[in-house]
Amino acid sequence: MNKVFLIGAAGTAYGKSNLTARDLSMLASKHAIENAGIKPQDIQASFVANAFGMAEKQGHLGPLLMSSLGIPHAPSSTIEAACCSGGSAFREAYVNVASGFYDVMLITGTEKVSHLDTLTATTYFAYGGDYLFEGCSGASFPGLYAAMARAHMHEYGTTEEELAAVAVKNHNNGMFNEKAHLQKKITVDDVLKSPVVADPLKLFDACPFSDGAAAAIIASEEFMNRNGLEKKISIKGSGRSGGSGSLHTREDMSSLESTIRASREALGQAGISVKDLDFAEVHDCFTIAEIIAMEDLGIFEKGQASKAVVEGRTAINGEIPINPSGGLKSKGHPVGATGVGQIVEVFDQLTGNSGKRQVNDARIGLTHNVGATGGSCAVHIFERE
Amino acid sequence: MNKVFLIGAAGTAYGKSNLTARDLSMLASKHAIENAGIKPQDIQASFVANAFGMAEKQGHLGPLLMSSLGIPHAPSSTIEAACCSGGSAFREAYVNVASGFYDVMLITGTEKVSHLDTLTATTYFAYGGDYLFEGCSGASFPGLYAAMARAHMHEYGTTEEELAAVAVKNHNNGMFNEKAHLQKKITVDDVLKSPVVADPLKLFDACPFSDGAAAAIIASEEFMNRNGLEKKISIKGSGRSGGSGSLHTREDMSSLESTIRASREALGQAGISVKDLDFAEVHDCFTIAEIIAMEDLGIFEKGQASKAVVEGRTAINGEIPINPSGGLKSKGHPVGATGVGQIVEVFDQLTGNSGKRQVNDARIGLTHNVGATGGSCAVHIFERE
Repeated sequence: MNKVFLIGAAGTAYGKSNLTARDLSMLASKHAIENAGIKPQDIQASFVANAFGMAEKQGHLGPLLMSSLGIPHAPSSTIEAACCSGGSAFREAYVNVASGFYDVMLITGTEKVSHLDTLTATTYFAYGGDYLFEGCSGASFPGLYAAMARAHMHEYGTTEEELAAVAVKNHNNGMFNEKAHLQKKITVDDVLKSPVVADPLKLFDACPFSDGAAAAIIASEEFMNRNGLEKKISIKGSGRSGGSGSLHTREDMSSLESTIRASREALGQAGISVKDLDFAEVHDCFTIAEIIAMEDLGIFEKGQASKAVVEGRTAINGEIPINPSGGLKSKGHPVGATGVGQIVEVFDQLTGNSGKRQVNDARIGLTHNVGATGGSCAVHIFERE
Repeated sequence: MNKVFLIGAAGTAYGKSNLTARDLSMLASKHAIENAGIKPQDIQASFVANAFGMAEKQGHLGPLLMSSLGIPHAPSSTIEAACCSGGSAFREAYVNVASGFYDVMLITGTEKVSHLDTLTATTYFAYGGDYLFEGCSGASFPGLYAAMARAHMHEYGTTEEELAAVAVKNHNNGMFNEKAHLQKKITVDDVLKSPVVADPLKLFDACPFSDGAAAAIIASEEFMNRNGLEKKISIKGSGRSGGSGSLHTREDMSSLESTIRASREALGQAGISVKDLDFAEVHDCFTIAEIIAMEDLGIFEKGQASKAVVEGRTAINGEIPINPSGGLKSKGHPVGATGVGQIVEVFDQLTGNSGKRQVNDARIGLTHNVGATGGSCAVHIFERE
C-alpha cells in the first residue's frame, strides 16, 4: 500500500441552514481545495457521503458537485451507511489512493434536514436502523440508545449524572468552536432537568439534527513529491467493520462489536496502541454512545469511562481529550457530514489551527464514526508528520 | 494490482414483487454464494447498490443483509450513483480486491419501487438528475432522453423506426430470459403505435420500472488457489467516469462523454479493442440510449449504430450481440440492481448457461452502466479463462 496524506479539510458551520445539501457540499469542498493548496483539476475522483438526499428530492449528488467544481469528468458516487456514511466514504477513498487507483481524491459529506419537521426527521433517521423490526414499532434511535444506556447502567452502575457529564464536557468544548451548532454552556443539572426523550436519556443527552457539510482531500506521496507540497498529516490506519443491523439480536447491548473490530484493525495497521493517541473524535450521538465508544476503543476499561469523564480526564486539558470539537452533541450531527467533519477537526488540531480548543502538542488523532446502533463503524488514525 | 475473478452471480426475477428490497437482496446474494461454491463466511466485505431505499423507509441496507447471511461483522456500505449504482458498487469492490484489501467481496444491487404509483416513481427517478434545474421543471428522464433522441436525429438522421428496432430486438432476446420483466414479442409497428411519452419517445421506447435484485461475488487469485476453486471468469478491465450532472450544460446531447472515458479506461486496462468483444450488455433505459451507447463505446461509428440494429447485426446471432439478456428494455430496470444484473448476464453467458439466448462461443463480454443522463458511467470487461 502507498502512503496516503490528508492534505486539506474544511467544513461549513453546522446548524440550521437555508442552503441545499448540494450548495453546502460545494462550499465545504471549495474551502478544502483552497487549504490543500491544489486546483480542482488535481482531483481525480470523489465520494459524497449523504443519507437523506431524497428529503430534498436530490440523489446522485456526485456529478452535480463535480460539475460545480469544473471537473465533471471526475467520477463521484454517493456512499451511505447511515450515520457512518462519512467515515465509510473516507475509507473507500483511502483504499483507492493507497492502492494507486487515484492520486488525489475529495471526500465530501453533506446533509440538509432542517426543513423537515422533528417527527419526520426522527422517522427518517430511523430508516438507518432495522425499520421493519425496530423503527415501525416506534423504536427510533433515542429509544434504542436508551436501551443501551439501561444495559450499561445495569452492567456497570453507570449513572444519569455521569452521562450528563459527557454533555457538559462536549458543550464546554463546543463553546470554543465557532462552527458548532449548539454553542451554549450547560450544567449537569441542566441535563438532568431537560425533558425526558427516552428514559434514561433526556433532551440534553442527545445530539441535534443539523444541516452542514465537511470535505477532506487525500493524496498519494508521489503526488505530494511531484508538486512539492508539504506533507503535514499522514493516514496511519484505517479500520471498517459491520455489526448486526438490529439491536434485539445482540447478546450484549453495552458494547459495540463493530467499534472493537474497526479500531483493532486501524490500530494494528498504525502499529500503535490507544495509549499513543493525543486525542480522539468519537461518535457521541447520545452521551451513552461516547461512554461505550471510549470503552470499546480501549481508551478506558469497561465501566470506567464515565468515571474518567466526571474526573475531567477527557477534557481538552485532560490526559486524553475526547471530542475537542464539541462532538456530535455540541458541534452537531449533519448525518452524511459527521464522519468527514471529525476528520476536519483532526486536520485543524494536527495543523495547530484549533484556537482555544487546541489540544496541546497534538501529534496523533483518531476518528470513530458509527452507523445506527453499530451496524457500521469506521475508525481512522492520523499522525502529524 | 492483483488479478480478480468473477466467481458467482445470480439474480431474482425482475418485475413486480411483493418482497422488500431487503428480502430480494438476500435471495440474490444467497443464490450467488451457492453458485460461487463458497460459504457466506468466506465473504469479507460487501457493497449494496440501492437508490430508493427511502421509498421503503429503509436505508443502511448493508448490515441487514450481512446479518441475514450470518456475517454481521462484514462491513457493507450502500453505493448510489442513480441508475449506475450497481456498476459503481462493482467498481469499488473491484478496487478493494485488486488492491488486496479483501480477498472475497459480495456486491448486491436491489430495488423495490412497484408499491409506488407511476407518478411518484417517475418523480423519484428524476431525483437522479439535476432536480433543481431539470426535475422540478418537469424534465424527468423520458423528457431528457427525448431531447437526446431529437439531437441524434438532427445530427445523424436517425429515425423513429430505427429506435423501434432496438426495442423489438431486446424484446426478442427477453423472450428467452425467464427472469425478464417484459416477456412479450413486439413489432416495430407496436412501438410506433404505443402512446407517446415524450416525443419522439413512446411507451415501448422506454424500459419499465422493476423490482428485483442481483448479486455478484469476486475473489482474488490467492483465494482461488488456496481453496482449489476453478477460475472461470477474470475481470480484465474496469472503467469509471463522471459527466456533467445536468443535460442543459452540454455542447453535444447526442453522445455521453462519460461512456467514452469509462470505456477507454476499461479497454485500455484489458488491452483489447471493441472488435475483440463477443457481446455487450449496455444501458438501454430508452432505445436511443442503446444507440448512443454503441457509438460511444466505439462498436459502431457515430450515426451507424441504428442502421446496424435494423440490419440485425446486434441480434444474438449477429456479429456483435447487444443486450442478449433483453436489456433494461425487456429484462427490466430495478435501478440499484441493474448494473449488477448486467454482470449476472455476463456470468451466465461466459459459463455457457444462457439457454436459448446463449451467444455462440462467448469469451469476452462488456457491461456498460449509466447513471441519469451520463453523470455517472461504469464499464467492465470480463473474459472466460
